[in-house]
Amino acid sequence: MQILHTTPAADGFSMPAEYSPHYGCILIWPERSDSWQFGAYAARKAFVEIASAIAESEAVTVCAGYSQYNNARQALPSHIRVVEMSSNDSWARDYAPTFVTNAEGELRGINWYFNAWGGLTDGLYFPWDKDNAMANKLCDLYDADAYDAQDFVLEGGSIHVDGEGTAIVTENCLLSKGRNPELSKQEITDKLKEYLGVSKVIWLKYGIYQDETNEHVDNICCFVKPGHVVLAWTDDENDPQYAMSKHCLDILSNETDAKGRPITVHKLYIPEPVCITAEECEGLDNMDFEPTRTAGERLAASYVNFYIANNAIVMPGFAKPGATDPLNLSYAASDAKAKMTLAKLFPERKIVQIYARDILIGGGNIHCITQQIPKFINKCR
Amino acid sequence: MQILHTTPAADGFSMPAEYSPHYGCILIWPERSDSWQFGAYAARKAFVEIASAIAESEAVTVCAGYSQYNNARQALPSHIRVVEMSSNDSWARDYAPTFVTNAEGELRGINWYFNAWGGLTDGLYFPWDKDNAMANKLCDLYDADAYDAQDFVLEGGSIHVDGEGTAIVTENCLLSKGRNPELSKQEITDKLKEYLGVSKVIWLKYGIYQDETNEHVDNICCFVKPGHVVLAWTDDENDPQYAMSKHCLDILSNETDAKGRPITVHKLYIPEPVCITAEECEGLDNMDFEPTRTAGERLAASYVNFYIANNAIVMPGFAKPGATDPLNLSYAASDAKAKMTLAKLFPERKIVQIYARDILIGGGNIHCITQQIPKFINKCR
Repeated sequence: MQILHTTPAADGFSMPAEYSPHYGCILIWPERSDSWQFGAYAARKAFVEIASAIAESEAVTVCAGYSQYNNARQALPSHIRVVEMSSNDSWARDYAPTFVTNAEGELRGINWYFNAWGGLTDGLYFPWDKDNAMANKLCDLYDADAYDAQDFVLEGGSIHVDGEGTAIVTENCLLSKGRNPELSKQEITDKLKEYLGVSKVIWLKYGIYQDETNEHVDNICCFVKPGHVVLAWTDDENDPQYAMSKHCLDILSNETDAKGRPITVHKLYIPEPVCITAEECEGLDNMDFEPTRTAGERLAASYVNFYIANNAIVMPGFAKPGATDPLNLSYAASDAKAKMTLAKLFPERKIVQIYARDILIGGGNIHCITQQIPKFINKCR
Repeated sequence: MQILHTTPAADGFSMPAEYSPHYGCILIWPERSDSWQFGAYAARKAFVEIASAIAESEAVTVCAGYSQYNNARQALPSHIRVVEMSSNDSWARDYAPTFVTNAEGELRGINWYFNAWGGLTDGLYFPWDKDNAMANKLCDLYDADAYDAQDFVLEGGSIHVDGEGTAIVTENCLLSKGRNPELSKQEITDKLKEYLGVSKVIWLKYGIYQDETNEHVDNICCFVKPGHVVLAWTDDENDPQYAMSKHCLDILSNETDAKGRPITVHKLYIPEPVCITAEECEGLDNMDFEPTRTAGERLAASYVNFYIANNAIVMPGFAKPGATDPLNLSYAASDAKAKMTLAKLFPERKIVQIYARDILIGGGNIHCITQQIPKFINKCR
């Protein structure tokens, strides 16, 4: 694995869209007790379900720390590979390389600097050294050379591309004080063009209300095919999400993509607010003598946080199987509606909905814990 | 990666000879300060030279613990892969799986139980949990299913095969009290037949004088082609090695291999005794309040401990480059003689001799720190 000091665009590489063919997918086994309630047992079950659903059409590798290797190996089906790799937490989207390919199908990775979503300014934990070391290790694992972008703070969850020259990001995230405060919006746009190999960057302002990543785009909006996006939506004007989503909609409605096409927006309705309970909070260890969550806190629930696998859409659901209280019935209804929306948009993929409250409590969802590896031709070992 | 509870022979798998085509080779980055003198810096240089020589004709992967990953990545050439993997020490031959293949070229591994060459009876360190966990992890890394042989203590360095039905081992090692004292010689023979897929096991009695592995066969004798072995040898009847090698020679001279062929023995002359100096001992941390070596101690130096790469023989040398004292000149002469012997036996491979005193002080040599992966056809990721 070579460290490259050029940029993907200069070398003829760009980031393929998530709906392009994949070689595989990377996940990281959850472990830390201040992220994953009650020792991560419930979250691990969800991770196993998600990894298994993806592994039906892709080569899945799960990274596990030394002390959890055996547990991960035993819990995951045998056709999923488990490799030992140290991390601080489990957000593969944000620590794994952003992979790029060229016209020949060669694979390379981008090693952004990861600082736990805001470093010492408003990051979510300290230290983040093991997470930041993962991108190079994963490039090495797949024999992919790695672009050194350690002078630029970015997470995979804060970008989406259509594979045809367009990227979407959010201002609240990419212009946050904890990332690259010394760079202007134009300079960041230029960086994205150089690294993602795009010619146009669409800047939304907001993400999902209360999203502690400073509102990653991957929780509110993503491409479903060129010229088409889904946008997290609510019709409830009293919900703080309404104004945020409306602002995004207005921008998207007046934008064109890199090829000059107008953008069709498909609304993907959020569930009724998902709030953490006092009982759930009890299962989260403190961090630096402070609780990581407080009872009643609204979590950043959105159906946009799905993963596009080769033959499936692996999407979150919030209705607890079997529970029949009114709130849960409401979640069941919104789960079903969201599933139907995605089924229409992805007619050739199976829609797999997985109960993901235990991942949401950790601070993200299915897209956040996965990183796709595009189909590639490098010699593999 | 599946754990298999059958045996290779029952499934049509067997261990190919080391001189058969390889896919690649595994090594483990040296780190522990009671094995590798002066913080392992000199040993690492030798490891880099060895890995580089092998990588000229094979896909080399070096495993490194978390804290040494960056050092290993920086020290090794970029075409060698580095993966994070925990271990207690660096003897890939003994911790990595023994790989077996079938007629179709599928790859599987054997996960022997590793107990640091004798467990609590006369093992060399405690604990050995990380080493013993490596075989399964390495099978997983290469998508090879793993035979569970955790009820049987064996190291890769204690066996050699000709790829045509014959294995060679030593009694002093395989019948040692610290390994499988509950099994008879016949029962161990049967295990080897079942796991290695051989029909005949030749039992030598001895290995190399002072070899702390209880005299692994890979330091005294190995196949160079079917029907032909090299045997570590000295003409000095006063050297304790003489009687040991002579005993082996007598057995080999009266044996036939699995195909009924007599065995031709090629003598490979050992160097003048290589003894550790007081200065070198100062560079070794104590273990359990005891020094690991004492000044003047004879080390188990042998040229048999070479690695057969696809296009090269990577063999040890003991003459320090540039040194001109009489002992060193003697080593230079024996190095050259051994190189010539192997050059004649492997006319189609380049002979690469690497100064290996720093590995010898650690307790083994080039064969001990490598494990070959035969050519295989499994889907790789």
